[in-house]
Amino acid sequence: MAPPKCSFTYFNGRGRGEQIRWLFVQAGAEWEDRRIEQDAWPELKPKAPTGALPFIEVAGKAIGQSGAVAMYVARENGLLGSSNLEAAQIHMLWECTQDALNAMFKAMFCKDSDKQAAMFNDYYTQSLPKLIKLMAAHLKGGRDWLIGNKVSMADLVTVCLLENYTDGPGLAAIEAEPSVKALIERVKNLPNIKKWIATRPASQF
Amino acid sequence: MAPPKCSFTYFNGRGRGEQIRWLFVQAGAEWEDRRIEQDAWPELKPKAPTGALPFIEVAGKAIGQSGAVAMYVARENGLLGSSNLEAAQIHMLWECTQDALNAMFKAMFCKDSDKQAAMFNDYYTQSLPKLIKLMAAHLKGGRDWLIGNKVSMADLVTVCLLENYTDGPGLAAIEAEPSVKALIERVKNLPNIKKWIATRPASQF
Repeated sequence: MAPPKCSFTYFNGRGRGEQIRWLFVQAGAEWEDRRIEQDAWPELKPKAPTGALPFIEVAGKAIGQSGAVAMYVARENGLLGSSNLEAAQIHMLWECTQDALNAMFKAMFCKDSDKQAAMFNDYYTQSLPKLIKLMAAHLKGGRDWLIGNKVSMADLVTVCLLENYTDGPGLAAIEAEPSVKALIERVKNLPNIKKWIATRPASQF
Repeated sequence: MAPPKCSFTYFNGRGRGEQIRWLFVQAGAEWEDRRIEQDAWPELKPKAPTGALPFIEVAGKAIGQSGAVAMYVARENGLLGSSNLEAAQIHMLWECTQDALNAMFKAMFCKDSDKQAAMFNDYYTQSLPKLIKLMAAHLKGGRDWLIGNKVSMADLVTVCLLENYTDGPGLAAIEAEPSVKALIERVKNLPNIKKWIATRPASQF
């Protein structure tokens, strides 16, 4: 039985949303990509299940918090591995990806330009290389996918971060890990993902 | 079949660990409560799966990141609701609990005493009441448990936070929501939890 149709609500940008969009896209799921503009957010906020974006609405329920949304969509669509232990490993890599993403957002929203530069440096030289090394450890021994023997949410969300928010020393960290570089190409060449990247709506961030 | 035996490693304190210990305790699971002292941490850190605590070891695998650990333990032990949608709602409440816990830790580790006071004030007057209101919304209509018709990880982790890290205006926020106050008593009087609270190892935090 196909999973019930979800609507996915996020700003008209990549940010915390794109990684979850890739799950729907890879699965070939039926979903609605609801993109709202910044000026529509204050009116919507009180109706969001936890006062934040992204959230999904499915089967009459609204689920907020990006980890809860991602894990739900992944499980419904066969992207959470083959066992509870694989699901846990995938979840671990999700949270490591969010640690890096949080460091990036902290820098992006910092209003003091000196502190901001230090935060971006921290993201590119610490947070991102830490994630890349962890990915390389999971790919050791010539493995094609981070967890288990097929593409999972772990591959999609890590590569989505690296595709969107890598620069300078982050790029060098990828160059230093050929297995990660190859994974990025492998994921970006999945037919559904490749088509999505080529045709997704343009956005400012 | 009983789930495989887990060892659970965290500092000898409550912090981010106690909420997961409550899952093992409520389930009556076979588990090892590995508590390490602060001075043993530098030596262990490189062996931790993501360089952080808590983590579990089970079936030859190590899983880090507290969300991944909590969801794994809950799923293995029947504390993740009756459907994927209930699991997602439980996960959402977990992440809201971590948002509050993160605000508390940010305050606790702040070294500037003026900023620290402001951060604790923010935790007690914003983060904690936000979580308490969300809990009250889920208990509306005289419900006994936050999600579904039986105790779940959502009840255990929210009440664990409120039991450990509530004071001043946080207590007033609980008083204002009788359904949340009743849930706290309901969870603390679950026989396994009650016994654990009475007999758990003493710790400094």
